[in-house]
Amino acid sequence: METTNNDLSIQSIQEKDSEKLIEMLNIFWNGLKEKRKTTKVAPGILQNLPDVITKDPYPVKHTSLENVFKEVYEEILPYCVNTANPLFLGYVTPPSLDITWLGNAIIAMLNQNVSFSALSPAGTAIEQYVVNQLCKLVGYSDISGGVIVSGGSTANLQALITARRSVLGEKVAAVGNAQSGGSQRIYCSTQIHRSIHKAAIIMGIGVENVVEIPCDVNQKIDVSKLRKKIAEDIADSKYPIAIVGAAGTRACGSFDDLKSLSEIAEENKIWFHVDGAYGAFLKLSDYKPKELDYLHLAHSITIDPHKLLFMPMDNGCLIVRDRQKLIDAFGIEGEYLEKFHPVGQDFCDFGIELGRSMKAFNVWLAFKYIGLDLYKKEFDRLLILAKEFKELLDNEPEFERIGPSESIIVCFRWNPKVSYFSEAKLNIVNDKIRTTLIKEGTAFLNGVTIQNQFALRICFSNFNTKVEDLKVLLNGIKNMSKSII
Amino acid sequence: METTNNDLSIQSIQEKDSEKLIEMLNIFWNGLKEKRKTTKVAPGILQNLPDVITKDPYPVKHTSLENVFKEVYEEILPYCVNTANPLFLGYVTPPSLDITWLGNAIIAMLNQNVSFSALSPAGTAIEQYVVNQLCKLVGYSDISGGVIVSGGSTANLQALITARRSVLGEKVAAVGNAQSGGSQRIYCSTQIHRSIHKAAIIMGIGVENVVEIPCDVNQKIDVSKLRKKIAEDIADSKYPIAIVGAAGTRACGSFDDLKSLSEIAEENKIWFHVDGAYGAFLKLSDYKPKELDYLHLAHSITIDPHKLLFMPMDNGCLIVRDRQKLIDAFGIEGEYLEKFHPVGQDFCDFGIELGRSMKAFNVWLAFKYIGLDLYKKEFDRLLILAKEFKELLDNEPEFERIGPSESIIVCFRWNPKVSYFSEAKLNIVNDKIRTTLIKEGTAFLNGVTIQNQFALRICFSNFNTKVEDLKVLLNGIKNMSKSII
Repeated sequence: METTNNDLSIQSIQEKDSEKLIEMLNIFWNGLKEKRKTTKVAPGILQNLPDVITKDPYPVKHTSLENVFKEVYEEILPYCVNTANPLFLGYVTPPSLDITWLGNAIIAMLNQNVSFSALSPAGTAIEQYVVNQLCKLVGYSDISGGVIVSGGSTANLQALITARRSVLGEKVAAVGNAQSGGSQRIYCSTQIHRSIHKAAIIMGIGVENVVEIPCDVNQKIDVSKLRKKIAEDIADSKYPIAIVGAAGTRACGSFDDLKSLSEIAEENKIWFHVDGAYGAFLKLSDYKPKELDYLHLAHSITIDPHKLLFMPMDNGCLIVRDRQKLIDAFGIEGEYLEKFHPVGQDFCDFGIELGRSMKAFNVWLAFKYIGLDLYKKEFDRLLILAKEFKELLDNEPEFERIGPSESIIVCFRWNPKVSYFSEAKLNIVNDKIRTTLIKEGTAFLNGVTIQNQFALRICFSNFNTKVEDLKVLLNGIKNMSKSII
Repeated sequence: METTNNDLSIQSIQEKDSEKLIEMLNIFWNGLKEKRKTTKVAPGILQNLPDVITKDPYPVKHTSLENVFKEVYEEILPYCVNTANPLFLGYVTPPSLDITWLGNAIIAMLNQNVSFSALSPAGTAIEQYVVNQLCKLVGYSDISGGVIVSGGSTANLQALITARRSVLGEKVAAVGNAQSGGSQRIYCSTQIHRSIHKAAIIMGIGVENVVEIPCDVNQKIDVSKLRKKIAEDIADSKYPIAIVGAAGTRACGSFDDLKSLSEIAEENKIWFHVDGAYGAFLKLSDYKPKELDYLHLAHSITIDPHKLLFMPMDNGCLIVRDRQKLIDAFGIEGEYLEKFHPVGQDFCDFGIELGRSMKAFNVWLAFKYIGLDLYKKEFDRLLILAKEFKELLDNEPEFERIGPSESIIVCFRWNPKVSYFSEAKLNIVNDKIRTTLIKEGTAFLNGVTIQNQFALRICFSNFNTKVEDLKVLLNGIKNMSKSII
């Protein structure tokens, strides 16, 4: 039966297409699996935005599902990075597990709002479970807790808000920074993630009050300089509130001396937060950096499921040693009827957002389906892979490792070691190598500058990457470099 | 071929189950469609958490897909609210469009990181498009822009951070509130969403510096009291930074006088933000509150796709009249190589989060598939439905409307109007009616207290609700009330 245009409604088109949705997904999934095998990591087309999308006019009329999907195939897919390619290695944002698209679909179908426990008992139970498992993983006790957030930046922000509330007390929440004394201070190393600086701006602390302490040669924070600086600041009437340690720095994957940082925090009665967005998971592995033995000493830890649990983007997590501290900082007051009859934790009290999706469901699915044994096995494999890659580099006269490498990040450069190649020239060539790799679609690497040397950076977090892929990559770079210089 | 336990890996189980995922989803989707028709809005079991989930041990071993899904059906589904039920009316969080689960699945499959445009041209183009359409919808010009965030609380927070940066300048980002003068002030009515208070705590402004101005009888902010209070505060050396107007209050769906608020903001050279999380969309409708004619005067607007665009939870949006203000507040500095070769806006410069999912894809899908014509038609229908419901109430001697109602929220109570029913008794009975409706699974309403009267609150945002459902609801309440009193 044809519906005339006037009969169309959201209800009627949904009714009509109800069966077709699964068909569409089936076609898409099977097509994508093929495409993943045949498509380069980054097709050349990536150098522009799809104009047809950005310049598309106001979408007034209903478009059939088939035609919408025609546009997805023709206009959107060619502009996507193939994150499942074994040589997508630029970030610790691995491809997502297949089961997560199933989970994501179900989350949308059920559309639970995991704000008040009385409104979403299932979502609440699942999130409590997921957070508890992550707390156990890092060695936290029963009074710990946490919350799923959008990502590491939000987790770090929430940690620092909790830190301030815990150190300076109720007054700062009531009257703000201006009436709570002088400048608040946050301490970290020069290698910390920039989200700490963003958090300082957001919190009205100011980016100049993020005190960056120099690192040693292994890119770990210089503990004695930190201790000295805090003492100076206190003498200077500043208000230290938190030390942020890195369990996996951005550039080289270094781990700060968490034990010493914890001691300094205790001495000064301030908060100790660890940004372990990816590195905290490595605690499961036999090959973990030894600093992770002290991870549980942190008051709070950022640990992002969209990193080493292989969740899709937008799945971060903050866990805290004492969950009451988080509730003190974020618990809402006001006339919310649902709070009169709680059946569990009200997760809106654990963070910024009041309305919250059930995205913990995806982590739960993966915990059950994969199991921690297989996660551990994969983390072991990734750490070994990084080690094997370092050996490959060390055995290749044309390559040189740059900076330390103690976990899943390895930085290196192409360097023929001939006298007429200046440092400046090497920097230009290696930058060009990276850009060419992306333009050709061979590999997606990132680059960082370490002590004025431009290095190619590889993050080993992709479960599809094998040592053979790395050999192909290095040969490709060698061949390419001849034409670049 | 059976794999022994030692051969198992993330890669091998994904390979094995690749076909099965679609099957699982097909079964789930068809089962859920049936369940939506037959399941009450809130099964009685909702009064507890599923213990089997929260107390489940550490998930060490791989569990088969079938067994995981057995647990989903048996332990999780019974604890979910049936948001598709026509009488799920407690919040402006409607059921999600079917097409969004397809979109959500694809978002996870592709797993694009929409942080840097060079890393995700498709995601960037889509988000630019979606945000531009929302800007057009409210009447913003070409220099406007915005960003998809997790929800209204984050959108409001980001708006206020942008406000502070715009009003107080670069210095506040550099040195923070303590060195930037006295207390910053935010103005709003008593009816504003509590996320404004949370934002003030997060920003180091303090909850006491959120100045709540009384409302008139229509629950709209008293404009003359606001003007007076700001003048007093300036005389008292406070730093006003923003006025927050409501385009749809939480309790009654009232719309502040946006024109006057804009004028007062201009007079004082401060920011004017509008929380239009759901109400801003009504601008499309022929039956919109007239205040929406001035929506475009706001410097920034919260407008959440997970409300009236029927996206699943976790899809909010902030739009700003001048997008450069947002970049000034959130643009990241630091060594990010991708920023050297942008192909469009870098969305990590538009908000808190650096790593970001392609959830704008879901909004794009719906814009194309539904089209704004059908959205408008649905908004018209919802506004008419609210009006029809008011008429139903006014014609029923046992019911009484409470508070104003100018858009999609209607508050009311059961009141037999007999002398021996005190106000206190009426409050108790109506609270009990609400609880009983939820326990019986008949309807999910919320409740609010308006001038000491407890009222049942209905939000008309569910595309499945028809006027017949409302008649059934009112009859149900009448019958139930006999046994409650």
